[in-house]
Amino acid sequence: MPMIRETLVVTRRADGAAHVAPMGVQSLTLPDGVEGMLLQPFRPSATLENLQRWPYATLNHVDDVRLFAGCLTGRRDWPTRTAERIACARLECALAHEELAVERVEDDPQRPRFVLRLLARTSHAPFPGYNRAKAAVIEAAVLVSRLHLLPPRKVARQLEYLRVALDKTAGEQELEAWSWLMEAVAHHWEKLSA
Amino acid sequence: MPMIRETLVVTRRADGAAHVAPMGVQSLTLPDGVEGMLLQPFRPSATLENLQRWPYATLNHVDDVRLFAGCLTGRRDWPTRTAERIACARLECALAHEELAVERVEDDPQRPRFVLRLLARTSHAPFPGYNRAKAAVIEAAVLVSRLHLLPPRKVARQLEYLRVALDKTAGEQELEAWSWLMEAVAHHWEKLSA
Repeated sequence: MPMIRETLVVTRRADGAAHVAPMGVQSLTLPDGVEGMLLQPFRPSATLENLQRWPYATLNHVDDVRLFAGCLTGRRDWPTRTAERIACARLECALAHEELAVERVEDDPQRPRFVLRLLARTSHAPFPGYNRAKAAVIEAAVLVSRLHLLPPRKVARQLEYLRVALDKTAGEQELEAWSWLMEAVAHHWEKLSA
Repeated sequence: MPMIRETLVVTRRADGAAHVAPMGVQSLTLPDGVEGMLLQPFRPSATLENLQRWPYATLNHVDDVRLFAGCLTGRRDWPTRTAERIACARLECALAHEELAVERVEDDPQRPRFVLRLLARTSHAPFPGYNRAKAAVIEAAVLVSRLHLLPPRKVARQLEYLRVALDKTAGEQELEAWSWLMEAVAHHWEKLSA
């Protein structure tokens, strides 16, 4: 079974600026033995358009989960730096990042499959260890990205469960990320009941 | 609110061997401005005895969650290396580890508080990013460590929820870790119904 990592994909917009999007990616081995990654951006999405125009991306592995919650709630403006091998940005706060080039694309009406080749992987800071509140924020972010598909009662029940780990183990960043997500949930529910 | 990281604490046994235990730790700042960590091992526990005899420990931040599940299910024999600054082991598979010395102890009938001073922090491998299945294994490990305190129905309901992320995003390591934990749950429930 292929493992899926939740990461932040940075692509290059038409104006050259960075576009940051949270996405699940799957690692794979290319026919020549080099490491690769599989990205399946939804159609339509900015990441898809960007990759079609400029076939490079960075994957950014962060400890600050505000980036996951932020990108889902209109807060996409995070500090970046230039990558080393490709003309594309990477996130300044990444503990580590990978630089990739599109190797081939398999088209699909909903989620085209981009196979990317790993060009570079760089570590910037030591991994400080797991935190249950960060995991709860990421699960809540997954829920928020699917609010239009899920029954409100199911969302409420799962958030109540996730809240336990948050209350026990969160620091400031996790509480802020959680508050952004809860605002989005409240906003969605207000629209439903309006 | 202080953030709590789930990590693997290695201490030195009386015979010099390494003792590995999963534990939640809290970072803090010592009066002289140096980084520290707060460890609160339960009484009785091997980690507590070891720290009282030999006041050094390493904190090991791993990506392989089998270590969390393994230590809870009798699989404590993981490859180690010697630390750099202290006579204590660290885990070979750690993405990063920290070396610490006990600074002071506040006694407590249940959980004595050990304040440790950070002596060194070393990165060994880049953080490869979040994985929801790893987070599900860690949550399941927390449940397994509290089986004797929790109603079986609550445990079953939470495991059912965690299983969804496992099924969607796990690799081989996460499936193996999960299977060890589910064996422990089944064994506990058999004892209850015997």
